[in-house]
Amino acid sequence: MSDRPVTPLLDTVNTPEDLRRLKHADLRQLADELRAEMISAVSVTGGHLGAGLGVVELTAAIHYVFDTPRDVLIWDVGHQAYPHKILTGRRDRIRTLRQPGGLSGFTKRSESEYDPFGAAHSSTSISAALGFAVANKLAGEPGRAIAVIGDGAMSAGMAYEAMNNAKQAGNRLIVILNDNDMSIAPPVGALSAYLAKIVSSGPFLSMRGFAKRVAQKLPRPIHDFAKRSEEYARGMATGGTLFEELGFYYVGPVDGHNLDHLLPVLENVRDSDHGPILIHVVTNKGKGYAPAEAAADKYHGVQKFDVVSGEQAKAPPGPPSYTGVFAKALVAEATRDDRICAITAAMPSGTGLDKFEAAFPDRHFDVGIAEQHAVTFAAGLAAQGYRPFCAIYSTFLQRAYDQVVHDVAIQNLPVRFAIDRAGLVGADGSTHAGSFDVTYLATLPNMVVMAAADEAELVHMVHTAALHDSGPIALRYPRGNGTGVALPTVPERLEIGKGRLVREGKTVAILSLGTRLAEAERAADQLEALGLSTTVADLRFAKPLDEALIEKLLTSHDVAVTIEEGAIGGLGAHVLTLASDHGLIDNGLKLRTMRLPDIFQEHDKPEKQYAEAGLDAESIVGTVLAALHRNNKGQVESA
Amino acid sequence: MSDRPVTPLLDTVNTPEDLRRLKHADLRQLADELRAEMISAVSVTGGHLGAGLGVVELTAAIHYVFDTPRDVLIWDVGHQAYPHKILTGRRDRIRTLRQPGGLSGFTKRSESEYDPFGAAHSSTSISAALGFAVANKLAGEPGRAIAVIGDGAMSAGMAYEAMNNAKQAGNRLIVILNDNDMSIAPPVGALSAYLAKIVSSGPFLSMRGFAKRVAQKLPRPIHDFAKRSEEYARGMATGGTLFEELGFYYVGPVDGHNLDHLLPVLENVRDSDHGPILIHVVTNKGKGYAPAEAAADKYHGVQKFDVVSGEQAKAPPGPPSYTGVFAKALVAEATRDDRICAITAAMPSGTGLDKFEAAFPDRHFDVGIAEQHAVTFAAGLAAQGYRPFCAIYSTFLQRAYDQVVHDVAIQNLPVRFAIDRAGLVGADGSTHAGSFDVTYLATLPNMVVMAAADEAELVHMVHTAALHDSGPIALRYPRGNGTGVALPTVPERLEIGKGRLVREGKTVAILSLGTRLAEAERAADQLEALGLSTTVADLRFAKPLDEALIEKLLTSHDVAVTIEEGAIGGLGAHVLTLASDHGLIDNGLKLRTMRLPDIFQEHDKPEKQYAEAGLDAESIVGTVLAALHRNNKGQVESA
Repeated sequence: MSDRPVTPLLDTVNTPEDLRRLKHADLRQLADELRAEMISAVSVTGGHLGAGLGVVELTAAIHYVFDTPRDVLIWDVGHQAYPHKILTGRRDRIRTLRQPGGLSGFTKRSESEYDPFGAAHSSTSISAALGFAVANKLAGEPGRAIAVIGDGAMSAGMAYEAMNNAKQAGNRLIVILNDNDMSIAPPVGALSAYLAKIVSSGPFLSMRGFAKRVAQKLPRPIHDFAKRSEEYARGMATGGTLFEELGFYYVGPVDGHNLDHLLPVLENVRDSDHGPILIHVVTNKGKGYAPAEAAADKYHGVQKFDVVSGEQAKAPPGPPSYTGVFAKALVAEATRDDRICAITAAMPSGTGLDKFEAAFPDRHFDVGIAEQHAVTFAAGLAAQGYRPFCAIYSTFLQRAYDQVVHDVAIQNLPVRFAIDRAGLVGADGSTHAGSFDVTYLATLPNMVVMAAADEAELVHMVHTAALHDSGPIALRYPRGNGTGVALPTVPERLEIGKGRLVREGKTVAILSLGTRLAEAERAADQLEALGLSTTVADLRFAKPLDEALIEKLLTSHDVAVTIEEGAIGGLGAHVLTLASDHGLIDNGLKLRTMRLPDIFQEHDKPEKQYAEAGLDAESIVGTVLAALHRNNKGQVESA
Repeated sequence: MSDRPVTPLLDTVNTPEDLRRLKHADLRQLADELRAEMISAVSVTGGHLGAGLGVVELTAAIHYVFDTPRDVLIWDVGHQAYPHKILTGRRDRIRTLRQPGGLSGFTKRSESEYDPFGAAHSSTSISAALGFAVANKLAGEPGRAIAVIGDGAMSAGMAYEAMNNAKQAGNRLIVILNDNDMSIAPPVGALSAYLAKIVSSGPFLSMRGFAKRVAQKLPRPIHDFAKRSEEYARGMATGGTLFEELGFYYVGPVDGHNLDHLLPVLENVRDSDHGPILIHVVTNKGKGYAPAEAAADKYHGVQKFDVVSGEQAKAPPGPPSYTGVFAKALVAEATRDDRICAITAAMPSGTGLDKFEAAFPDRHFDVGIAEQHAVTFAAGLAAQGYRPFCAIYSTFLQRAYDQVVHDVAIQNLPVRFAIDRAGLVGADGSTHAGSFDVTYLATLPNMVVMAAADEAELVHMVHTAALHDSGPIALRYPRGNGTGVALPTVPERLEIGKGRLVREGKTVAILSLGTRLAEAERAADQLEALGLSTTVADLRFAKPLDEALIEKLLTSHDVAVTIEEGAIGGLGAHVLTLASDHGLIDNGLKLRTMRLPDIFQEHDKPEKQYAEAGLDAESIVGTVLAALHRNNKGQVESA
């Protein structure tokens, strides 16, 4: 347990109203105390550290200058909003971040009026802010909308779509580009190179420079060419032409840690009639905490750590993570087959593809936060005979659903989808849960959908996908560590649409998809103990279904239960549809489908989430017994 | 039937190889003949006319200069590719465009090796072309990839994501920006204003200007500032700075109808070592056909027409279209309620919102081809107390799935989704079918999903959605005309999650969602004639289900059938899941789910598509009789 820092000034600030009563000159100390408090809090909770450290001064300055919450402040992604939470009435709960029942690791509407729009996925903030700004315009209300968005998030198409529409908001919209030269990984692409060029080529903007800039911007009735000359001259001086051409007034670059620059610039922007304005603020991720500044990932996401040394708590030794197993398996495939490529959308480390990149840099593509492009780019590679693996978390693949449908499935192109973080995700909460992929993929013609029951199965599935050239194929696997089974030395090519029997019984059949298999086996043990002979099958495929195996299991047992880590419409629905299509339910069939509940589950410890979802062994046993009208001793209940 | 045009030169050209044997000087005549042939063909088939007319010269020039199909040519959207089809071995089938069994109205891989990547949704071409270009780079192959993309399609985030990643392709990637200053509707947003500024401010680029430009571009070891000066000077001269800043060499603007300019520019680009290159070509939609040039929509999509007068065949008088009924109903709601807003993604006319815009310009938002932004912008409006209707076709809402999940459903914000073109879409084919929306929406917590059975129901549902402030709500309705029922003078607010009985019987229950209701009633007539008393219910809601009604119907009839115009995982799956959850299948339940088949259906006449899908009255009767083990006279079959 770290000692709490001494924070006499911060102790007087519970809300931005309090903050706004301070003097300009006090903000430096306030920022220092805020930074110390945040480091202290995250050292006990773990979570996102580097991003928040980078915006301490910016957070204080925005709340100081603007009239939040009437001026709406929207943090893109929201993982940098811990200092914001401390300043907006949530300091007393800041050491509950990401803990069960505690504060979310992102912004969240239900937490505070200072979180007008929740986030977690990137690049939504400008669109949302524009909604607020236009609403205020329609209503004749004065409030501004301020979106703070990172340079990484700017690579997503959605941010560009929003900028392209921003002009209508006039001075009600302010976009603060928080340029820390990295998102989670170092940034990629032309935009990033462009921003770097701006920052490297001139001094930071101070108040004096800003006043001059604004004066130049006053619209005057000048000849078009003269106006264009001025515009380009300004573009050349400031480098902001790209944003100017998208209809913004560009202001910057501004040193985001220098309050003497930041405050007057923000005040001038606040008082400007021009807009929309984009303020280019340059910050250092991890700023002010030496171990974070020194680390390659700037302590993007950390475990609990020791404040003095920066040393993070080590995870207890255990089985390898699914992510790690996937990466190793894919590298092995790519060693054998030079047509295999790997694509990530700004998640080389999260997906494990950093290992692929190290081995095969030419065949590794980090496209930035650009899932739509990632999928169609993969489709192009596949059309030209390559074997691309698109490694995207389940929740982020939602960003590319149309590309999966239109560019991959309709054309039946063999793009491989490696879907990490499928199912519940613990402390990351509802916004990151991978709940819908089986439903939204298995409804598509041509698509093959697999789920790995353990890390050995994952190795087989990577191999199977690598060799599957006849159409698209998806493999899903969860966050976290494997079960500890031995990994195969030679991977097996699975037959498409065939499941496997894990144990055979007579009375109860459990049809499992994915890693709930371990709970299915635990449930089977408990059922056997109650005298109920139990079969457990690992279906492996949600599409195509193993029709023969399923039909046999349904018709030869007293009760059957499907279990999956996904929402309604997935495996259970497909099995029921099969049973109905084949007339198996006509004469009576005890079949139950266990799935994620019809709620967005809050962040919690994984085992609590599973219990809440009713997807653990106890719930399986309970479902089976209820279907058989037996009590928890396995005895038949009287009617 | 129009007379065929006289096309002596075109008659000698069956493939691009033939074309490339012509002299430069012959291409003008070839283009004229190509244009005449295209007008003649579309006059008998109907289809997309204006876009193809605009790219006649460009099509001929690209195939003339580049080595297609080894150089890969990808038409964005593909509805402008009719001249391309004529030149690539499909002239003999060009009068089958969009007809049953005929050529697709878009590019399609299965049609020709000259269609390396199919399309229909916009803005995919640069990503796909990049896939081909990078594949060639990996393989050490020389082939180029050429994407031709309209200025409207450039407003989509996906195009930006691709441009941001283009640099790695080097000179293997060529993007031709076909700037005709409109997509389907006049363009919106900053990018469009930017392009207009370029075009209006200088002369078109000719060969001489181009040679000079390329010379300037040769990389030299010059001081950074000097380089930047040059870059901006060039940007000022050419206006292409935005694309230059995204890593492209900008070339243009070029007059896309002047072959004396177009051919040498393309040849120079082909022979250039620099890249990626963006060529800004300016064309006129509808070019060369006076009635199209004169029309506001430039004959974007037309019925069969008379070539001389340009007069289009009138649709026979009939009931109003669902689109029209929706628009009128929404205008009526907005008249009563000034918090109602309407949002379209570049489809003001297709969605009917042009009528809303005429009535309430301040509350109408055309965001361009930017579905992701549209949804999150709507979420922002909703969070600030407005009542936004997001009117997006079913197939295009796939583009914004993550925004529906993350920004709307998780936050439970009352965004109204008006989902036009739900279900099969006839001549528009598989890429435009709205097959998956019930599945991908009804799996989401908080979401309400309605489907209108006829145009009167649609009016009620618009009203119901307008008043539904407790969370998101979607209403789906099909392409085409209503059934002719009387429209309500006062709309009714439907109770959420309640269906209605349309007719009551005893033996057979048909549970319908959406406009298959008419077929359900026809089927009921036929079943009654066979002595089978039939109930027909219009469930209205796929989520939440009317559990009481469904349970009652399932348990009080000998057989029940669900029918919906959607793929697996939707209504039928939810009804089966309910029946399983409630133990209704334990003791036998004859329940069948009728849905779209597990294929992407080709374009065809709607009634043929329904028959193929098994979603017409005859199929319902057949399904019921089979479940009851009766023959087609209604007699019980011997076992």
